[in-house]
Amino acid sequence: MIKKLLIANRGEIAVRIIRACKELGIETVAVFSEADREALHVQLADEAYCIGPTASKDSYLNFTNIISAAKLTGSDAIHPGYGFLAENADFAELCRECSIIFVGPSPEAISKMGTKDVARETMHEAGVPIVPGSQGIIKDSGQAIELAEKIGYPVIIKATAGGGGKGIRVARTEDDLVNGIRITQQEAMTAFGNPGVYMEKYIEDFRHVEIQIMADSHGNAIHLGERDCSIQRRLQKLLEETPSPAIDTDMRREMGEAAVKAALAVDYSGAGTVEFIYDAKNRKFYFMEMNTRIQVEHPVTEMVTGVDLIKEMIYVASGKKLSLKQEDVTFNGWAIECRINAENPEKNFMPSAGQIKMYLPPGGFGVRVDSAAYPGYTIPPYYDSMIAKLIVHGATRKEAIEKMKRALSEFAIEGVHTTVPFHIKLLQHEQFVSGEFNTKFLELYDVMNS
Amino acid sequence: MIKKLLIANRGEIAVRIIRACKELGIETVAVFSEADREALHVQLADEAYCIGPTASKDSYLNFTNIISAAKLTGSDAIHPGYGFLAENADFAELCRECSIIFVGPSPEAISKMGTKDVARETMHEAGVPIVPGSQGIIKDSGQAIELAEKIGYPVIIKATAGGGGKGIRVARTEDDLVNGIRITQQEAMTAFGNPGVYMEKYIEDFRHVEIQIMADSHGNAIHLGERDCSIQRRLQKLLEETPSPAIDTDMRREMGEAAVKAALAVDYSGAGTVEFIYDAKNRKFYFMEMNTRIQVEHPVTEMVTGVDLIKEMIYVASGKKLSLKQEDVTFNGWAIECRINAENPEKNFMPSAGQIKMYLPPGGFGVRVDSAAYPGYTIPPYYDSMIAKLIVHGATRKEAIEKMKRALSEFAIEGVHTTVPFHIKLLQHEQFVSGEFNTKFLELYDVMNS
Repeated sequence: MIKKLLIANRGEIAVRIIRACKELGIETVAVFSEADREALHVQLADEAYCIGPTASKDSYLNFTNIISAAKLTGSDAIHPGYGFLAENADFAELCRECSIIFVGPSPEAISKMGTKDVARETMHEAGVPIVPGSQGIIKDSGQAIELAEKIGYPVIIKATAGGGGKGIRVARTEDDLVNGIRITQQEAMTAFGNPGVYMEKYIEDFRHVEIQIMADSHGNAIHLGERDCSIQRRLQKLLEETPSPAIDTDMRREMGEAAVKAALAVDYSGAGTVEFIYDAKNRKFYFMEMNTRIQVEHPVTEMVTGVDLIKEMIYVASGKKLSLKQEDVTFNGWAIECRINAENPEKNFMPSAGQIKMYLPPGGFGVRVDSAAYPGYTIPPYYDSMIAKLIVHGATRKEAIEKMKRALSEFAIEGVHTTVPFHIKLLQHEQFVSGEFNTKFLELYDVMNS
Repeated sequence: MIKKLLIANRGEIAVRIIRACKELGIETVAVFSEADREALHVQLADEAYCIGPTASKDSYLNFTNIISAAKLTGSDAIHPGYGFLAENADFAELCRECSIIFVGPSPEAISKMGTKDVARETMHEAGVPIVPGSQGIIKDSGQAIELAEKIGYPVIIKATAGGGGKGIRVARTEDDLVNGIRITQQEAMTAFGNPGVYMEKYIEDFRHVEIQIMADSHGNAIHLGERDCSIQRRLQKLLEETPSPAIDTDMRREMGEAAVKAALAVDYSGAGTVEFIYDAKNRKFYFMEMNTRIQVEHPVTEMVTGVDLIKEMIYVASGKKLSLKQEDVTFNGWAIECRINAENPEKNFMPSAGQIKMYLPPGGFGVRVDSAAYPGYTIPPYYDSMIAKLIVHGATRKEAIEKMKRALSEFAIEGVHTTVPFHIKLLQHEQFVSGEFNTKFLELYDVMNS
């Protein structure tokens, strides 16, 4: 079992991992940038070391300093959280070379899933449904035009090195397509150092439904149900729930089995998420991408399954077998997560850094708060704007919605603007309450003025 | 269904009830004493009214003002929480006369269970095991001596109007007995206006194990498992857990069935707790008393059963049938509650009122906080010293203990002393961890210096 773990991250996910370690009796090492000296993860860890200046590239993305910190503190493992280093195959490889356990999948699995056209082909071969499109990278516009004619417009051009909503362009005509390929290639070269793009049929109306999987290094893999993350603003998730209002038991099993196939196809180990495009009208799903790490929205899965995903990641990284089998996984009730960001929803979600003067999270039955905020904490403007995740669990979707509204209404945060008022409006919105919506929800409805 | 509910209480239980009402769409009316103007329950309720000066007898126990507040605000129900009016049959009767729903059992049931010797006889007749002892009130010392000879010393003398550890005295000899009866009668007269005392065999080593029951006004009653409240200091509970480390499935069913019998015997409706003396060595249990209200420690039951007891009380008080049957009740994992009091455990638990300068409750998976505290709140010295209930849920007792230690270690409260350090020591104590202890635990072990 891992004895000492370095957390190569900050904010709520660093706190989340430290909490799991404390409960498991694992020593914790926090690392922080110069801007994060007062951060909660620094205060909660057994040890904490500054690993560089404020800019992420010099601190939280600084391979050398992080590996050095791990070595100097005698840490036998590194948990990357999400973002930063979590999906960096080179970092996972460096850990391996330095005999440090990387709490996550192998560099090979990260690499296969991180290269989008390779992932697509791998999934296709494994029998996971994919959206009709190009086989691998597009060679030239002639080939692209021919394919687009065949699968029908609109199509979507995606950078193979992209992710998180970057390096994506929709084309509705031949002209769009030719220009789109050229621009996306240029952008991808600049952003990711890899100009490769591929093409898929563009599905206009879909729900974002993802499956949580967990796999060990002994060839076992299970799924822990779905999360519906269709409530997005500019491809950023704002609210997630499980179960999905659009998924029944049969569909859950079908998607779950596909996700397990995906994991086994790349010898996956650890926690992962297979994201699907879900066409609710036609009851069809297609592989979108696999995130080879823990996700921000993992708590909703924990609330309905009772499985602590961070602890499970640590067990698996320590070489243990999965602590449960597929048939042991049960789903109980409904969970919703709202991401509370320090942003002003009245002003187009403009970031609102500054000092939190008053801070009192809500409590009571079925309410969970994962946060690194505290009264007097100054939110640095350099990183992610998320300051808390508010998660609720109820017997039904209705109860979970009512509980979330109650919890949001008591969440006291003064000194910065937050997205709390947005979430209250969203949860009151008829269309949200109906459960019938897709990823275009926030384009279609002006929630703040509803 | 109840539309508007007045909460005749303060502190965390008032907040707990307001939260349930908000989730059910029920309007809430808070009442407060002059000392509680800044209290959280006042801030969270839809409306709030001052009902009198600081002293409880003039405010929270002021029948007239509370009933007037209910009438003036158009409240159709009153929830008394625990303490204050919760077990006052006269108040329940007054509500009935004023056509206000009292969220709790009938005045008759309260009265029967509140008169300890009557409760004892009623239970005996219903087939619930009772400790050998006097049938009704002791008439004179001659009768008492004769009975004590028969059942054997030590015996315990209890005021029939007592409760919560008051009006109780152990006698180990005939002299003890004669004096004990006289003193307890005098004390009971002063404290409760009723000098009646009864006698029972004194069981030296026992666990306090209580069964949560819930009944409706249609003759249905179920139990929701046990809570072990053996960790007590001067008869005040400090930590509660469920399941009990000493109870197995068979014993749970047996005790549960006895508790349901107890409830049915008095036509009970609402939430109640049947407290038992549990003799673990001999696997025997005896009726101790029934608390005809919600208990402080109810959240541990909610955590393992998933049933919201406050909501269920409200449904039942509205005339609905129980929302679940006995066979629907399932028990999942392990829950522990620590009562965080504003007391100094280094100085013999001396109360520590004052302003809370810094307040940050712990969070994360499986952690629940029920509290009325906030940063800047001044704890008035006039009422209960409990400022928060910290409740955790884990898959096993070990996980729950580790989670509680973790959560306690992050609970930041500055400005007043609290029992957090006591609980940390307690949870590290070998004997506590072993699960083998009884109500004498805190007499036997000096936890703070362990």
